Order: sequence, then C-alpha cells, then structure tokens
Amino acid sequence: MAKPKNTYYLTAHCPSTLGTMDVLTRYLCEQQCYVVEMQTFDDIESAHFFIRMEFRPPADHAFDVEQFRQGLAPRAAEFGMQWELTAASLRPNVVIMVSRLDHCLNDLLYRYRTGQLAIEIPAIISNHPDLQRLADWHHIPFYYLPVDDSNRALQETQVLQLINECQADLVVLARYMQMLSPELSTALTGKAINIHHSLLPGFKGELPYHQAYDKGVKLVGATAHYIDNHLDDGPIISQGVEVVDHSHYPEQLIAKGRDIECRTLARAVQAHIEGRVFLHQGKTVVFSS
Amino acid sequence: MAKPKNTYYLTAHCPSTLGTMDVLTRYLCEQQCYVVEMQTFDDIESAHFFIRMEFRPPADHAFDVEQFRQGLAPRAAEFGMQWELTAASLRPNVVIMVSRLDHCLNDLLYRYRTGQLAIEIPAIISNHPDLQRLADWHHIPFYYLPVDDSNRALQETQVLQLINECQADLVVLARYMQMLSPELSTALTGKAINIHHSLLPGFKGELPYHQAYDKGVKLVGATAHYIDNHLDDGPIISQGVEVVDHSHYPEQLIAKGRDIECRTLARAVQAHIEGRVFLHQGKTVVFSS
Amino acid sequence: MAKPKNTYYLTAHCPSTLGTMDVLTRYLCEQQCYVVEMQTFDDIESAHFFIRMEFRPPADHAFDVEQFRQGLAPRAAEFGMQWELTAASLRPNVVIMVSRLDHCLNDLLYRYRTGQLAIEIPAIISNHPDLQRLADWHHIPFYYLPVDDSNRALQETQVLQLINECQADLVVLARYMQMLSPELSTALTGKAINIHHSLLPGFKGELPYHQAYDKGVKLVGATAHYIDNHLDDGPIISQGVEVVDHSHYPEQLIAKGRDIECRTLARAVQAHIEGRVFLHQGKTVVFSS
Amino acid sequence: MAKPKNTYYLTAHCPSTLGTMDVLTRYLCEQQCYVVEMQTFDDIESAHFFIRMEFRPPADHAFDVEQFRQGLAPRAAEFGMQWELTAASLRPNVVIMVSRLDHCLNDLLYRYRTGQLAIEIPAIISNHPDLQRLADWHHIPFYYLPVDDSNRALQETQVLQLINECQADLVVLARYMQMLSPELSTALTGKAINIHHSLLPGFKGELPYHQAYDKGVKLVGATAHYIDNHLDDGPIISQGVEVVDHSHYPEQLIAKGRDIECRTLARAVQAHIEGRVFLHQGKTVVFSS
Repeated sequence: MAKPKNTYYLTAHCPSTLGTMDVLTRYLCEQQCYVVEMQTFDDIESAHFFIRMEFRPPADHAFDVEQFRQGLAPRAAEFGMQWELTAASLRPNVVIMVSRLDHCLNDLLYRYRTGQLAIEIPAIISNHPDLQRLADWHHIPFYYLPVDDSNRALQETQVLQLINECQADLVVLARYMQMLSPELSTALTGKAINIHHSLLPGFKGELPYHQAYDKGVKLVGATAHYIDNHLDDGPIISQGVEVVDHSHYPEQLIAKGRDIECRTLARAVQAHIEGRVFLHQGKTVVFSS
Repeated sequence: MAKPKNTYYLTAHCPSTLGTMDVLTRYLCEQQCYVVEMQTFDDIESAHFFIRMEFRPPADHAFDVEQFRQGLAPRAAEFGMQWELTAASLRPNVVIMVSRLDHCLNDLLYRYRTGQLAIEIPAIISNHPDLQRLADWHHIPFYYLPVDDSNRALQETQVLQLINECQADLVVLARYMQMLSPELSTALTGKAINIHHSLLPGFKGELPYHQAYDKGVKLVGATAHYIDNHLDDGPIISQGVEVVDHSHYPEQLIAKGRDIECRTLARAVQAHIEGRVFLHQGKTVVFSS
Repeated sequence: MAKPKNTYYLTAHCPSTLGTMDVLTRYLCEQQCYVVEMQTFDDIESAHFFIRMEFRPPADHAFDVEQFRQGLAPRAAEFGMQWELTAASLRPNVVIMVSRLDHCLNDLLYRYRTGQLAIEIPAIISNHPDLQRLADWHHIPFYYLPVDDSNRALQETQVLQLINECQADLVVLARYMQMLSPELSTALTGKAINIHHSLLPGFKGELPYHQAYDKGVKLVGATAHYIDNHLDDGPIISQGVEVVDHSHYPEQLIAKGRDIECRTLARAVQAHIEGRVFLHQGKTVVFSS
Repeated sequence: MAKPKNTYYLTAHCPSTLGTMDVLTRYLCEQQCYVVEMQTFDDIESAHFFIRMEFRPPADHAFDVEQFRQGLAPRAAEFGMQWELTAASLRPNVVIMVSRLDHCLNDLLYRYRTGQLAIEIPAIISNHPDLQRLADWHHIPFYYLPVDDSNRALQETQVLQLINECQADLVVLARYMQMLSPELSTALTGKAINIHHSLLPGFKGELPYHQAYDKGVKLVGATAHYIDNHLDDGPIISQGVEVVDHSHYPEQLIAKGRDIECRTLARAVQAHIEGRVFLHQGKTVVFSS
C-alpha cells in the first residue's frame, strides 16, 4: 500500500505563540481535510514555529482550493504566518546547471525519468557543450551558454532570463563550476541549490578533495546548500559522508565523492520540492520524509 | 539554550478518522498548554493513528494534572483513543537484568549516572554474582538469583515479584543469557526490552556472531526489541550495524558487537522512557527524538 | 598524483605454511617488479593463506609476461598455490542480465561510460525488451531472450551460449528477476554476481522489502553475492544498509533500496574485476581497495 | 578460534625502492617466523614505504628477540629503514589526562578493565578532583594537578615529570580542557593523542558544538589526532560522525557527540598501541585492524 497521491502540502511558519498549531488543525478539520502527515518544529532559540502538513481533501466533492485559501488567509494572518499551499501532484519546474562533470546530472535525470523525483526539467544550462547528448536522450532542452571573464555579465543575464522564462521553481547547480556574480547569487537566494564537494564549512573554495587529501582527513563528504551571497557558504540542507584512509589520493577521493555528491544533492532536491525545507535566519529546518 | 524540562508527554493512538488530531490540539490550546514538540503517524495499512505531543503547561499558575486528565478523557473517548500523560520530570523505574557480560549494563549505568538517561534503577537482577561490585559502586541494590533447570519456575517467580515490588515501569534485559518461560514472557509483554546480538530476523537463537561468521556476512548488528512470547522475535525498536570483513573471527565480531549492542539498547530504552514507542499489532512506531 | 596504471595483479592462495609470502616477494624482487600494493590474509580457521599483490614491472625494457609466468609456476607449485596474473590494463568482459528494473543497470552503465568501472560490456541480456533503448544509447548489443515455463531450458541454453561467445569473464545479474535452473547456476558458479535486495540471510526469496515491512525492521539493505546452486544463498561479497522507520511502506523501502542495491552491486563488481575477491569454502575473502 | 597472542609486531618505513618488502619477508622466513598479518602502503606522493607485519616466532624453542634484532638491523639499515619490534603481549603504559567530563575516561576504563584495550594505566592526571572516585574504583593512581594562569609552567613541569616517571608510551588527552604550552606540546609530539569534538579542520577551538549549531550543519563528528605544536591541528588518526538535524540544540549535539568521541578516541588508541599508526610528514598512515 502506498501513500495517497491526491494530497496537498501546507507549510507555514511564524513567531512562536499559543494557538499556532491549533488554528491550522482546526481549520483543516472544519474543511474535512484529513491530515496524513504532520511535522512541527518550535525553535526555542529564535522563538519561531514551523509546520508542514500533508493532507487529503474530502473525496466526495471537488475541493475548491481557492476557497480553501481564502478561508485560511485571515486565520493565518492573525499569527503573522507565512504559508504556502501546494498540490502534491504539481510537478515543479527545475532548471539544472552543469559544466562538464555529469555524475550529479546523470543521477538527477535517472530519478526524473523513473518518476522518483516528481519534477519537470524545462532546461539544462551549461557553459560547456559536452552534456548535450545526455540531455537530448532525455528530450530536455539544452542551452549552451559559454562564459569567460569577457562575457560574464551578459551570460548571467541570459541564464537569468532563461530561468525566468522557464518559470523555474528551483535551480539546481549540479557541479556548475563557475563562481556566480553577487547579482546572480542574490537573484537566486533561497531558490537555488548548490552541491559542494566537502563537508562545509571545511574546505571551501576550489579543489576541496585536494585540500582534504593534504590534511589527511579520514572522512570526506559533500554538502547541498542554498545559494546566497557567498557561493560555498549558504544555508546547509543536507550532508553526506564516507570513510576514507591514507591510500585515497585525490583521484580516489574524487571518485568516492561522486557517489556522495549524487546522494546528497538528490536528497536536498527531494526535500525542497516536497516543501520540507524552511529557510530561516541563515539556517534550514528540514523535515524528514 | 536547552529544551525546557517542565513538560509533559501526551501520547495517544486510535483508529484513523477525521478530527483525531484536532481534538487534542484544540484541548491543549484551550488549556493554554504550549506544544513544544509533536509527531504523528497515520498508518495507512492498519488505518490507525498515532500521536505524541510534548507540551509546556501554563506557567503563571499551578497546572492541575488531574483536572487536565478529567477534561481530556471524554474527548479522547469519542475517538476510541488510548492515551497516556506523563510528566517529563518523572523518572521511570527501570529494573535491569544481566548475567555475566557487563558491557550493556556498564553503558546504561554510565548514562544513568550522568543523567543522560533520566531513570531510577531500583534493582539489578542477575543469575550470576559477578556484577555485584559494579552495582554497588552505583549504590544500586543487586539481587543474585541463580537459576538452572531445577529451580527455574521458582526463580522466575522471585524475579517477577521483585519487578512488581519495585513498581518497575520497564525491565531491560541487558544480555540476560537465559530463556524466559512463556509465563514470564507473557507477564513482561510490551514491558521489557531485550537486546539480541544480531540483525533480527537473521541469526536468531544462540551464538549469533558464530552464525554470522559461518555465513561470511559483511555487516553485523544488534536488535533491541520488546519481549513477547518468543524471546528473539518480539517487535523491533531499534537496530544498529557495523561493517566487518573476512578477518573478523567470532571473537572480533563479538568485540565489535559490544559497541553496537550498547548503542542500540540505549537508544531503545531512551525512546521508550520518553514515550516515543508505540506497540501496535506486533510492530512498533518509534518517533525520533 | 594517481595510482600507476601499468601494473599487474598477482593473486594466489594455498594452505598456510612458512614461506608462502616469501616465495612471492622474493620472486618479484628478483624480477625487479615493484610491489605497489599488497594484502594478505591468513585464515586461522581453515589454515589457508590468501595474497594479492599489485606490482609494476621494470620500466626500462619490455616485461615478458610469459617468461614471468614460467618462472613463477614451479615456485608456486611447491606450495600448492593456485594463482592468477592479470594486467590491470586488461578490461574484463562483463555480461549484464536484467529484466525490467533499470536502476542497477543504469548505475553500472554510468560507471562504465565514465571509466570508473574498467570493463567491456559485450552484451546485455534481458527477458524483457524494455531496456533496449538504454543499451542502444551506450552502443551495447542488447539481446532480448524472453522466458517462461515453456521455454526455460532453451532460453538458458541461449543465455549460456551467448555468455560463452562473449568470452565473459563475469556475469552480473543486475535485478534479473528469474530463478536460474540448477544447471545454469552450476555453470555460473563463482563467475556470476547477483544482487539480492535484503541483508541475507534474512528475507530470502520473493518480495523481501514486503517481508521487511511486515517484520517492522529498522534497517534495510542489499547483498551482492556469487551465484551458486541456491540463488539467494551464495557467498556474500558486499552488503549495504540504510536506516528506515515505521513510516516506510514497502514502496518507500523499495525506493530507498534502489540506492543501496546500486552501491552494493557496484562495489562487488569493482572488487571482483580488480582481483580482490577470493572464493573459498563457501565464503569470500575481499581485500579492500 | 581467536587470533594467536604470542605474536610480535614489526613496523618499518623507509624511502620507496625495490627490495624493501623482500628484505623483511625473507628475513622472517629465514628465522622461521610465520607472518599472520601484513599490511603495506607505498605512498606515491612522498615516495615512502610503510609496512606492518604481525608474526609468530617458531614455537619449538625460545625466540631470542635480541638476536632477531641484531640480525635485522644491518639489513634494515641498507634501506634506511626506521623500524620497531614489539611483543603483542607487552602492555604499553598509557597516561590519561582529563578535566571534569568523564565520558571518554569512562569508556577507556571500561575497555581497559575488560581487556579489550591491552594497556596499563599508571596514572590519571586531572586539573580537577572530580574523577578521583572513578580512578579509585579501577585502582589507578589519580593525580590532581590544578592549573591556572599563575602556575601553568609549574603544573606542566609536574605533568611532564609524572609522564616520564610512569615511562608512558602514550598520553591520551581524554577531554583535557586546557591549552598546552608550546613546550609541553613539543615534548608530547607524536606521543600524545587528543580528542577534539568536531570534524577537524572544521570548528577548531572552543565550543565546537556551538559553532556547529550556529552553522546549521547536518552532521557532527569528532577527531582523534596526535598532538603537535597546534593543539587542535595535529595529524588526524580517526574521525567519527553522526547525522543531526535542526532540532539538535548545542545541548543535544553535545550529548550525541559524547558517543562519537568515545568511539573515535578508543579506535585511535587501539590503533596506536597495536602499532598500526605511522606519523609521516604531518599525516598518518593507519592500517586497519
């Protein structure tokens, strides 16, 4: 038996106070919406409340989403809630950016074509032509937008325009090996996930596996995080790790890292599109699935 | 900043139906009880609903637990709920049973004396005298109740009597190397946690590490489970695992297993005493902490 | 800096006795072969010795493999050694068998096309036509050999013939969902790797994730093993595991299992083709890379 | 069947060149010493060779260690080898330094008293009196040497004197919460293991779990490393890790960290005393057990 698919996600967050949970459960109950999954987090440190509810609307008549929203809005407003309502059946638009390395792209495309990752991919953008064939095989438009210091501003404008035209709900930097300008970073803040090949905040910047090798670490890992102004330093969504030893030269670390990066990025994307990730004051709340 | 300690756990379960969650959140809200942590599970397969709420009663006046219970009872009854309310400050009585191996006992006692495991230990029962000194050092009464085929019924009667006298909320079989009779098993059903040194249901019975060695497995593990009629076959609460290879003889597997057993058992006991474990139709629902 | 590629693997095993190691290191030294990696295991239980040496032949003149073999043979024979010498540059022929599920195939093909898995794939054999397109994209011959009870013997004959024609060094059953006949199993003993989606010996047979769900386990895993007469019961090469909880229905277990199966199978294949796996008395010795 | 105990460890390292391995295996063979375990590592980057051999001397007559050494010395000298020969039965002297936190000490003492860690503990040194009772129970001399800025040089002199008097083979800083002076650090270089409660090089310095919380990491860990001039920055021996999420406040991270620290430190100490760790050019080679 599988989880029902005709569900909605309601996510909300607001300052902690009595009644935040009740106002939502009561409204859903009144609307005869059955809660199939619910997670909450009350952050003592920031006195902030987070909630995610997955619910099944009443089956015997059409569920009027708009009316549901209108009824909820004033109740949520009383608590200063920011909230979102999403149909689970809605496949968000995810634009993927890559360079030459294809392991993360390959993994995401596999999950996409098997339906494990319930997304649409309106565009793959790359600063290299190498992965065109992989995109073609999946019937996904591939945009080759080369970039160097001479055309960075222009290229980024094209990238952003494409993202907007695709009505992207999320951008995934699947080993896109270019620094983003502050402008593009800002435009993508909280809307783009990057995979960095180290256990941030360790080994920021370039060649992290070489840094890890030089340091003689016994564990290597990867970090998926939201883009903010600092490319390798945004709010962490997921991290993965594996054991290594002295016999792992950088080449071996890189090979081992590929699997970790794929898993870690896929987990972050999955959590994001299911509305499980909240971004708040530079950190994330990630409800497990 | 730490989680507040003056909290209560409310756990409940009942058949799945609209309103189960709402009846509780509404009552807590009306009673001005603030929910600091909440977890739910709606089991599609058995159509059963599970909920655990950790809440902080209103601070400005004394919280009348009895009155709270009386108000809740009829509301919960409407949904056929079985529920429990427990003050987090209440330290449950845990009776530990051991034989000669002391690693699990040592680990539990360490967590007990540092307060990580918020329990009272009114008695340690053993069929061997060896661990008396360890019990003494922790000022815990030690009961040496030897057993063999000639006196099993009598010894078990003494064990059960001791458990009852201690008003034990939980019995932990921390490598108690004796088969329990069906009578004692039945008496302890759902009230006793056993640690078995394998990944059940693989390698039941005696000498599981030797079985694992013979089979050439590349992972060994341990399973903490509730006692039911079949000693090594009760509902699983937690499992732990570690990687091994061909160079691990049974002796090495046993050594490696000790750490896994300690961790796995401690996790199960912690979950149980915090009201995170539901036992339902031969399986458990375990809400993570 | 990467590991050198112009190396040879020398693997050997024989009854334990003084001098087994010395005879090999001495010969290699005399031949001016430089040992870059070496692993040994002396099994106390079976009094058997296993060794794997990776060495670099002298660079300044052509290395005469045949002469090297002829010199080694009588020395090894003195100790009753069974040995193999393989050039690391030699890409073994691996035939992959699949049914409809493509996650393991997809993963193996990814590692193949990126060179991480240094193999040739002369054939993909399937009892379903579904994965033809994936094979085509990788320019690998795809053989659709449907099978049911009416033609099993014939189909298996064709399979075996194809394996032989390909001069397959290894057959990988990458979720080939058919029982093999005892004849085919016997023919493939020690030459074929199967991935079973459970932590063997738990949950043999069909629908293991459903079995695991029914049992309420808190860990699921996968096992890569050599085929012998009993399909799900051959010598274990590698095992993988992940944590699950009550909220994982069979469908979720299956999804989680896909990643584990891919990793576990890939690890076994990699170890096999690098000559790191010894099969001895129903168990394996697997030297780590 | 267990590994034999009447064994010796021979460890050696030297510049990489043909014959390094052969000179040792040949000598052992000539001396009729049976190699039961052997590990090598040839570091391409630094062109340095590392070897550890565990061997059983001939049983039928007394093994003359001194004569063995004298025979080996000139052969090893030819290759510029630094080598050590140790009887496995020899229990090294390990001095443990602690402050108030007792989890690592408790874990080490447990492994000590059960024989899992085959060491002598001639002294426990602390700058606080709190853990005296725990030392007493294990019949281990406890030295209370308080320290503050006014007496640091004097206290460190006493500490070093005590370490020397005990003929310590190893010093373990089991959460000794004091910065060591450069003098003491230098004196202990390569002879002392520290446990730091983060995945170094991330979160050096004070309150690493608070740093990790502020950063919102999804994994926390611990690092056991040799002391060198920089307290939290010496060569890494072992690292451990666990998954955490947003609900882990620093207090929870600390609790979770305790288990990781114990395991990680114990693993490093075990590897060190079994001669499995080589310290070379600021990094370690750690042969697995």
